[in-house]
Amino acid sequence: MRETAPAVKAMVFDVFGTVVDWRSSIIAEGRRLGRERRIKINWAAFTNAWRAGYRPAMVRVRSGELPWTSIDELHRVILDGLLKQFGIAGLDEPGIAHLNRAWHRLKPWPDARAGLARLKRGFVIATLSNGNVALLTNMAKAAGLPWDCILSAELFRHYKPDPETYLGAARLLGVAPGELMMVAAHKDDLFAAKACGLRTAFVPRPREYGPEVRADVKRERAFDVHAHDFNDLADQLLGRRRAATRRAKRR
Amino acid sequence: MRETAPAVKAMVFDVFGTVVDWRSSIIAEGRRLGRERRIKINWAAFTNAWRAGYRPAMVRVRSGELPWTSIDELHRVILDGLLKQFGIAGLDEPGIAHLNRAWHRLKPWPDARAGLARLKRGFVIATLSNGNVALLTNMAKAAGLPWDCILSAELFRHYKPDPETYLGAARLLGVAPGELMMVAAHKDDLFAAKACGLRTAFVPRPREYGPEVRADVKRERAFDVHAHDFNDLADQLLGRRRAATRRAKRR
Repeated sequence: MRETAPAVKAMVFDVFGTVVDWRSSIIAEGRRLGRERRIKINWAAFTNAWRAGYRPAMVRVRSGELPWTSIDELHRVILDGLLKQFGIAGLDEPGIAHLNRAWHRLKPWPDARAGLARLKRGFVIATLSNGNVALLTNMAKAAGLPWDCILSAELFRHYKPDPETYLGAARLLGVAPGELMMVAAHKDDLFAAKACGLRTAFVPRPREYGPEVRADVKRERAFDVHAHDFNDLADQLLGRRRAATRRAKRR
Repeated sequence: MRETAPAVKAMVFDVFGTVVDWRSSIIAEGRRLGRERRIKINWAAFTNAWRAGYRPAMVRVRSGELPWTSIDELHRVILDGLLKQFGIAGLDEPGIAHLNRAWHRLKPWPDARAGLARLKRGFVIATLSNGNVALLTNMAKAAGLPWDCILSAELFRHYKPDPETYLGAARLLGVAPGELMMVAAHKDDLFAAKACGLRTAFVPRPREYGPEVRADVKRERAFDVHAHDFNDLADQLLGRRRAATRRAKRR
């Protein structure tokens, strides 16, 4: 980070994959449901397929082919297809709705809660996720994620990586784009945020797609910060702030 | 509350006057500034005038005379007029901007933090204020208000009591209007929420306008709950929930 850059005042976080481990969480929910209802399928494959349907569904919204549709609704459309594909019968409507809301109950990565609590002392921290507001609010409540504010693509009726999301977050938080840092485990999200003038922190999550898939964890010079997890991110950013304060006091 | 009504799942709160004591807070900020900069004016009169400009300014937005304008911007327009009117000179631009953000630093009523923390255990709790998102987020952080979610008229580009605000809050929180309870110290806010199908809790704040003005604190049969403060609100709502759970278990 250049010393001449404005100080970061607020941070926005990608959520699925960056803050929460969607894959293990959904697999665990599926297996529990399987035991209760005697549904014997490969829940890892089911989870991968559910997530794989997510991007193409959003592309249909981003292109204008579909009107604004929330992630809860997109998840449900994909789920209805998967129930047929995997031959899952016997779930009634409340059961299917409950399964769909498994995305409201995702578990955080082990470092997320503590790292966020530390970052919250120095910065405004908010979500900036394609998940809808209700999903993110319920998840924060269940998982104890200490957000100052819930921001979602839903508020802008644009999905990331559309620029309306990054610029809209800065506007709502009352900060300049250069005073806002985007935190994500995904490089495309960060490159899009950077193009809007935001600062960027890359926190790779090598296990996001399970043990068999290698996530792209390579350090990029384009990003302001590279951190191993949220505690490391807090070490780097809060340490840097303390050092800047000391420098300012000496002058 | 009728027993046949759906259970309340989420609560939204008016903020200025209901959660925070804007009048004492702004007067205190003004007096502090006055001591620092030797500005000798009647800060209570200044505060009353600032607040009195708020409704007419919003009406100009609600009527379409002005395009969407945030409360921070409306506060600033009113403030610029008051600086002239009260003959306050010698504040530079950062000083005026800081004074304008006094509304981000309002102090909660003595019962607010503890009552909200209790209510949070039973319900999703969110703001539903005409204050903009940055104002509400900064206020929550400074005052330690434990919101699950920050909702604002700004997200709907409609000020309360427009129905878009109440219905928009229910939509974003993923609940039916009848599952959402509006909490306010102002009857007009509650009547408008009720007309949209929301449940209503009246928490009068007799001192909102200072010791010389009598606020309307009379109980109304139209509202579902009448509570003396947020602790009483928690007693009533959480007690009611426990009783309902016991009844359901007995069946």
